[in-house]
Amino acid sequence: MPVQTSPRVAALQNVATRLRIDSVLSTSEAGSGHPTSCASAAEIVAALFFSEMRFDPRDPQNPDNDRFVMSKGHAAPLLYAAWAEVGYIPREHLLTLRRLDSDLEGHPTPRLSFVDVATGSLGQGICAAVGIALNARRIKSEYRTYVLLGDGESSEGSVWEAAEIAAADRLDSLCGITDVNGLGQSGPSIWDHNMDAYASKWRAFGWHALVVDGHDVTALLDAFEEARGTKGRPTMILARTLKGKGISLAEGKQGWHGKAFKKGDELRKVLAELESQIVPEEGPAPLPSGPRGHSASSAPVKGSVGTPSYKIGDTVATREAYGSGIAKLGNADNRIVALDGDVKNSTFSEKFEEEHADRFYENYIAEQVMIGSAMGLASRGAIPFPSTFAAFLTRAYDFIRMAAISNLNVKIAGSHAGVSIGEDGPSQMALEDLAMMRAQPNMTVIYPCDGVSTERLVELMAYHPGPVYMRTSRPKTPVIYGHDEAFAIGGLKILRQSTGDVATIVAAGVTLFEALKAHDELKKRGIQIRVVDLYCLQPIDAESLLECARVTKRVITVEDHYAAGGIGDAVATAIAPGGFTVERLCVREIPRSGTPEELLDRYGISASHIVAAVEPKA
Amino acid sequence: MPVQTSPRVAALQNVATRLRIDSVLSTSEAGSGHPTSCASAAEIVAALFFSEMRFDPRDPQNPDNDRFVMSKGHAAPLLYAAWAEVGYIPREHLLTLRRLDSDLEGHPTPRLSFVDVATGSLGQGICAAVGIALNARRIKSEYRTYVLLGDGESSEGSVWEAAEIAAADRLDSLCGITDVNGLGQSGPSIWDHNMDAYASKWRAFGWHALVVDGHDVTALLDAFEEARGTKGRPTMILARTLKGKGISLAEGKQGWHGKAFKKGDELRKVLAELESQIVPEEGPAPLPSGPRGHSASSAPVKGSVGTPSYKIGDTVATREAYGSGIAKLGNADNRIVALDGDVKNSTFSEKFEEEHADRFYENYIAEQVMIGSAMGLASRGAIPFPSTFAAFLTRAYDFIRMAAISNLNVKIAGSHAGVSIGEDGPSQMALEDLAMMRAQPNMTVIYPCDGVSTERLVELMAYHPGPVYMRTSRPKTPVIYGHDEAFAIGGLKILRQSTGDVATIVAAGVTLFEALKAHDELKKRGIQIRVVDLYCLQPIDAESLLECARVTKRVITVEDHYAAGGIGDAVATAIAPGGFTVERLCVREIPRSGTPEELLDRYGISASHIVAAVEPKA
Repeated sequence: MPVQTSPRVAALQNVATRLRIDSVLSTSEAGSGHPTSCASAAEIVAALFFSEMRFDPRDPQNPDNDRFVMSKGHAAPLLYAAWAEVGYIPREHLLTLRRLDSDLEGHPTPRLSFVDVATGSLGQGICAAVGIALNARRIKSEYRTYVLLGDGESSEGSVWEAAEIAAADRLDSLCGITDVNGLGQSGPSIWDHNMDAYASKWRAFGWHALVVDGHDVTALLDAFEEARGTKGRPTMILARTLKGKGISLAEGKQGWHGKAFKKGDELRKVLAELESQIVPEEGPAPLPSGPRGHSASSAPVKGSVGTPSYKIGDTVATREAYGSGIAKLGNADNRIVALDGDVKNSTFSEKFEEEHADRFYENYIAEQVMIGSAMGLASRGAIPFPSTFAAFLTRAYDFIRMAAISNLNVKIAGSHAGVSIGEDGPSQMALEDLAMMRAQPNMTVIYPCDGVSTERLVELMAYHPGPVYMRTSRPKTPVIYGHDEAFAIGGLKILRQSTGDVATIVAAGVTLFEALKAHDELKKRGIQIRVVDLYCLQPIDAESLLECARVTKRVITVEDHYAAGGIGDAVATAIAPGGFTVERLCVREIPRSGTPEELLDRYGISASHIVAAVEPKA
Repeated sequence: MPVQTSPRVAALQNVATRLRIDSVLSTSEAGSGHPTSCASAAEIVAALFFSEMRFDPRDPQNPDNDRFVMSKGHAAPLLYAAWAEVGYIPREHLLTLRRLDSDLEGHPTPRLSFVDVATGSLGQGICAAVGIALNARRIKSEYRTYVLLGDGESSEGSVWEAAEIAAADRLDSLCGITDVNGLGQSGPSIWDHNMDAYASKWRAFGWHALVVDGHDVTALLDAFEEARGTKGRPTMILARTLKGKGISLAEGKQGWHGKAFKKGDELRKVLAELESQIVPEEGPAPLPSGPRGHSASSAPVKGSVGTPSYKIGDTVATREAYGSGIAKLGNADNRIVALDGDVKNSTFSEKFEEEHADRFYENYIAEQVMIGSAMGLASRGAIPFPSTFAAFLTRAYDFIRMAAISNLNVKIAGSHAGVSIGEDGPSQMALEDLAMMRAQPNMTVIYPCDGVSTERLVELMAYHPGPVYMRTSRPKTPVIYGHDEAFAIGGLKILRQSTGDVATIVAAGVTLFEALKAHDELKKRGIQIRVVDLYCLQPIDAESLLECARVTKRVITVEDHYAAGGIGDAVATAIAPGGFTVERLCVREIPRSGTPEELLDRYGISASHIVAAVEPKA
């Protein structure tokens, strides 16, 4: 490497070397981690943190700070080292990496104030960065968003969803850097060091793309400047690097992914080699000089759905009431934003777009970037409502998992739940969404049955901390709740009860109306049942359910969902401490096309099946 | 449109018109569906079925037939019409579309012999097509694979995962056609009719790409010929079309997605207009002339893992035994193939690659195409074992959902389950995989604890019909089963029992060893417990669990998984009919980094927590 003459470059080169040393030290102390994946990106991060990025290093959450997302999350030690280098965390704290008592986890999580979204599942950071960049527009801030990817990561389809949406949205405040070190975990990455294979893709996707030597600080600084000057489209800097750069034992070699250097001789040699790379400098690199500007921030104002748009006797699909709910909520509160995946006329998020076009983000048919972008928006103070068919949220389950790990304020809506969608068939029916959402321990899960409860619950979910999922239905259902009915996260409604109830039917959404029909039918036959609208599955009102069980003994759940993970399991878990079990009516096989009514009956969740379940066997 | 003079072209043009008429008729009869999405692709399908493709129209499952995948599954009526046009299904049967008593569902499923994989979740068909094309190599067949995509669908990241892998694998037997009709569901598609926006992407991803007028039969035939002549890379034909082509009411207009024409005047006018487009022809288009060649097929031979590679007293991670198991299984049975996502040295699928490199498919970091490709391979007779970290299977949940709908023989393996992976932290820990897999009603779910049971279960899963999931663990565990131990799908093992058991502990994987430790500790204190290895969660041996519950009364589950959807729910459901409930030890919050031992204890699933749960409360 030629000796660098510029004082700034020399100082930055030394920052990079120190970042390498810290990454090596912390991973060796931990006994695991990815030092070679840190080493390849050391100059990139040094140049970003000490020259390109504008932020207050004492206040990582300053709303106008430039943002940095470590999409290649396994390079976490490099990120931690950078925040030590700018003085935010004590350098010695780096040696607590990966310990149970330390927030410096194996992969970054927002337990750390300088991490917006958890990374470590590849291809997600860039999706979040899209949302973070959109947020700058929302709050009228000049901050720029930087995201560091790995080359291996670029095989994830979600990266190209992000590429497409960022280009369509002309996000010129977004700058990606791909650390093309040519080596994946198990062998060479797919295109090795063929830089053109990467550049031509980004260009085809509408980005400005540059290829640079990722260990040449001057080239990196020039590239960042070019990115800043590029208008109307995002920039991707493709940085040719060597994995393990600066460590001759590992540099450019296979077999060193995810391996810490062994304490003792091996570590000593690596450190000596790195230390020898410190070059003479006239002074340290100056600290970042603070944000680019200051956006006008005002105290957040909560929105309200006000008077419900529907009244008892109306019929309206809950998906439509979801749309009217978020539209009203967005009137007072500009943190409320909506995202969709080319089904806004089915999820009714178009009602939000009609009122708040500047806060509606169309993601076309790309559910991963939709949820990822919502994660980014939420991490910067927005309250995003992404929506699509609930079936297609399975496409983004890894993102939902990571949103839960980050405990982000994403408010996810899935429409077209269950067999009650009818003729479109099983590919369009969500029958596992409750299972996948309930599995996340901090996910709130809501499932309204009518227009009024939907609007009320939309308002509650917006301001309930953490991730929330609302399941909506395709068919129109009657409005059964009045305007003064109160709802709560963790609540339920007992809609029918008498002193002679022989069973409690727990239902939600479309099956609630089957339960009500069954109630009326059984009443004619002289049999009383209790009917519960379990509009909130998680958290669940275990106390009320237990009380029902104590009174009626029998508890029957009925749900437009597969057997595992839905209402049946939720209720069973809630009443188990009382020694009670549930009987389940649910969809037990892969369904097929048919009318909604036919399918509810065919799969055993219609009123007649509830009646049969309640009636004493002959 | 200029009058076509070639007799072949005239005949094909008339086929296209008849396909439009049938698509319109069937959807109007059903009262729902996507006739305009069929109309845009009518010439493409006519040219494929009556000129380009080589197949036996009386035998859709002929192993050497060219394959056609309708990736834009909502154009199902067009597919059905094509199979009526070649005489495989009676034309009048088309009018049963979307009826409960008909296999002509709203979106295609393999209930139909001419459908390999269910489509309708966009961006999946092309992934399956990659696997179908790989299968041609496996069986040394000359068949070609055609896949029809929509332009809106191209925003799905999975499409670009498929693009990348197909190019890397030089799959020149694969030919895609994108029906660029410029309109999505809710508005114009992202790049409208900008054909270059599409072509440049496919070229950047290494495909041969052509732009043609998708309503010009001659241009289409030339393009197919060019694709056939293109070696070393797949071809994408970008067909400029109009949605609703031929129907002036809807042609090129928004607001007609997913709408059937109303029976009566509207339908009559549409039909009259289409019928007027029939041109004079000298004779009908000739039927397809049969497969391109005949691959040597031999009767399938079942493989075996033979003598287990491990013996009692050894310690080995189940993930490693998974690798040795599939490697041995592949010796005799060339249907066994393996796929991985750049973690073959962690999942140990590399053991398979070492023995059977020609049947190992590296998918780099692209889990969606990995599962999609496995779906395609399975649909053509292979027995694919795709593997990655179980956490990253969440990335492919929509594919797993569709594999279940297709009831395909995919044998999915997820390693690094639970907090027992340790320091890498929550992003790498699968804690919801059992929930997501069990939710699919036809998914078999296996969770072995030691090397011997892993190998035995690998053999069982290979030949158990339908989708199967095996969960493996990162830590080494002791081998506890002898070589003569027998296992079964739907089985369990009672490892400890006595007449005085006060509780049954149901565990699997790493927690089984915690249960065994707890057993020994409690025994010292004079307390007997029963210990069950629930190595198969679905189907579950409810009878044996009920018997345990009857004897011990208390049933305690302990699992390295979140509370919902895992072992606790599976056992609770199984024993509920006897009136028994479970007490659960499980991971109840988002975990963090730490050592495996620390984390098992911190999250309440270690031996000491089992002991505390069993011991009578003070």
